[in-house]
Amino acid sequence: MDPLDYHRAHRGKIEIKPKAPLNDAVDLALAYTPGVGKVCMEIVAHPEQVNSLTNKSNTIAIVSDGSAILGLGNIGPEAGLPVMEGKAMIFKTLADVDAVPLCIATQDAEEIVRFCKQIAPSFGGINLEDISAPRCFDILDRLEKELSIPVFHDDQDGTAIVALAALINATKVRGGDIRTLKIVVNGAGAAGIAIARLFSAYGISDIILVDSKGIVALGRDGMNVYKEHIANISNPRGITGSLSDALIGVDAFVGVSGPGLLSQEMVRSMAPRPIIFAMANPEPEILPDDAKEAGAFIIGTGRSDFPNQINNALVFPGIFRALLDANTIPKKCVLSEHMTEVKIATAEAIASVVTEPTPEHIMPTVMDPAVVPAIRAAICG
Amino acid sequence: MDPLDYHRAHRGKIEIKPKAPLNDAVDLALAYTPGVGKVCMEIVAHPEQVNSLTNKSNTIAIVSDGSAILGLGNIGPEAGLPVMEGKAMIFKTLADVDAVPLCIATQDAEEIVRFCKQIAPSFGGINLEDISAPRCFDILDRLEKELSIPVFHDDQDGTAIVALAALINATKVRGGDIRTLKIVVNGAGAAGIAIARLFSAYGISDIILVDSKGIVALGRDGMNVYKEHIANISNPRGITGSLSDALIGVDAFVGVSGPGLLSQEMVRSMAPRPIIFAMANPEPEILPDDAKEAGAFIIGTGRSDFPNQINNALVFPGIFRALLDANTIPKKCVLSEHMTEVKIATAEAIASVVTEPTPEHIMPTVMDPAVVPAIRAAICG
Repeated sequence: MDPLDYHRAHRGKIEIKPKAPLNDAVDLALAYTPGVGKVCMEIVAHPEQVNSLTNKSNTIAIVSDGSAILGLGNIGPEAGLPVMEGKAMIFKTLADVDAVPLCIATQDAEEIVRFCKQIAPSFGGINLEDISAPRCFDILDRLEKELSIPVFHDDQDGTAIVALAALINATKVRGGDIRTLKIVVNGAGAAGIAIARLFSAYGISDIILVDSKGIVALGRDGMNVYKEHIANISNPRGITGSLSDALIGVDAFVGVSGPGLLSQEMVRSMAPRPIIFAMANPEPEILPDDAKEAGAFIIGTGRSDFPNQINNALVFPGIFRALLDANTIPKKCVLSEHMTEVKIATAEAIASVVTEPTPEHIMPTVMDPAVVPAIRAAICG
Repeated sequence: MDPLDYHRAHRGKIEIKPKAPLNDAVDLALAYTPGVGKVCMEIVAHPEQVNSLTNKSNTIAIVSDGSAILGLGNIGPEAGLPVMEGKAMIFKTLADVDAVPLCIATQDAEEIVRFCKQIAPSFGGINLEDISAPRCFDILDRLEKELSIPVFHDDQDGTAIVALAALINATKVRGGDIRTLKIVVNGAGAAGIAIARLFSAYGISDIILVDSKGIVALGRDGMNVYKEHIANISNPRGITGSLSDALIGVDAFVGVSGPGLLSQEMVRSMAPRPIIFAMANPEPEILPDDAKEAGAFIIGTGRSDFPNQINNALVFPGIFRALLDANTIPKKCVLSEHMTEVKIATAEAIASVVTEPTPEHIMPTVMDPAVVPAIRAAICG
């Protein structure tokens, strides 16, 4: 089926449905005036009751400025809507989370922060989506500090978590201690920087971040404060140069960059039985067969038509299900201070769903119904 | 049933549901990556396709700042959510319109205007709700000029339209020409000013607007630009003084003020067989039995437990159904320039649903399934 036909057949993919009965004047008087007035005043008297008297605590906003939609670039808010409706379908189907697409007509970081703070009363959480780097880092950092509801940027956090989950299981198959792996992350946008940060927080010390200008290092051209932060916590062997230089002798390549950037020669220069995550979409950094021919031991991509799909959709339904549930459990309202622990627990939970990983099967599928409960159990206990 | 129990039983009243299938990896590849990329690029190439490829053209935002929720006052955005969820239920049930409650954390007019412009790419229309006067006038006026999607403030437009519908049918029963009626509108907030404006646009010239300081007139204390505008187009007989002074000899009283403000003595001072719309909620300006005892011929209130309920919910589902449908019909995209005609057509359509009005039955009920199609036919043809 053509995706255009699928979309036209339904004129979009989501709708708003009543979940309480509204059949007659009696229901109307309960759901709307005059009965609803008592409900409003209950929330005035007991503000936390908004979580049990409205759908706020099960509703999140998917906020995008349309600046980095999939791999399509800055195509604007209207053209981003189909992606956000698709995410909303996945949220509801896999995790019973009600997600509202809000593609907005501003790309100013300050205005995006203000916008998210303005909508916070109506939502239990905010999923930032497809906002380009480096603005996305500052927006997320500020909102995590300034809002009391969970905020998550899927292109940063989701990609980093699913990459860590894949690395955990790949290491189980390959053997050895994940913390002593030598790793190259290629691509220093939203995903690459978040991956380097999370891997580092997980205790992996030998990480090299590479972008289109080569190995990220202090004093180099094309740096920003986020790359400088990574430069300070990475590259302990002090390597300089290009991607080829970085890869010599390392155990794992994690690509969030572009098509065809990893050659067979580079793979051959890596440590024995290397791990290759070629996550560029839709065309990976290297095709699985080519990587295998050059000696790769485990290969993952972002695509569903190859083994080992490493896809954010394994992360966002479950982590929001858990964050929403945790936020309504007393004494668990300080999650934003513990987001690094939450991210690591989520990665470990996703990995745990595959009980006996093999080189061809390190990841659960997106539609696997065990993923969301595993994440929820890991975070909410 | 207690409204609190009704609300707690469902933890709120609305949810987001997929309306296209998402059962397996094939659906996933159509609804989300990689298939959705083609849909995004189709919208880039043909921007109007957003209306057939997403749910934008059937989705509206219900935007409130929580400053004037029902008759409860400035209770804030969270406490306003139950009302907006109730409206969303009514929108979907009666008119198949998908409505998203957005109760926001600002009461600054400039920020509310900016907010509405930011969300416009995701919505087919905006229903402003429970925003206090006089800010609401400026906000609506600016958005009508600056946005290409329909904007409607229910407390202004909805109340004015339903009052006009009631007056049309009351006049049918009472006899005479509606344009020569003498009318007093009590209350000069969002609703009172909008009623005076719409009645005037309908051709009624003898309108007197009264607020808590008495008859609205140029040079009086407590005026604002909106009251000044009404003062210029109303009160042709130049009456001064209080509500009692204004009512002497007039045909109709329209109250959007407060409980008990209309006495039997005042009713007795009006023209023979007067029309009384005592729309203050939940306690009307005069109880129907008291008004009748004093000689009132037709009495309407905002309440469902008396005859002739004059309720905004007769207006908003149908007018948005019609505005959304009209906006996707070629050559009908200039509705915002013709909103006065749209409002009058809506009032006449609501009145027309009651084919043989009587003193006890001038209005259809909110749940009457004939109302929305009548409005849609009147606007969309």
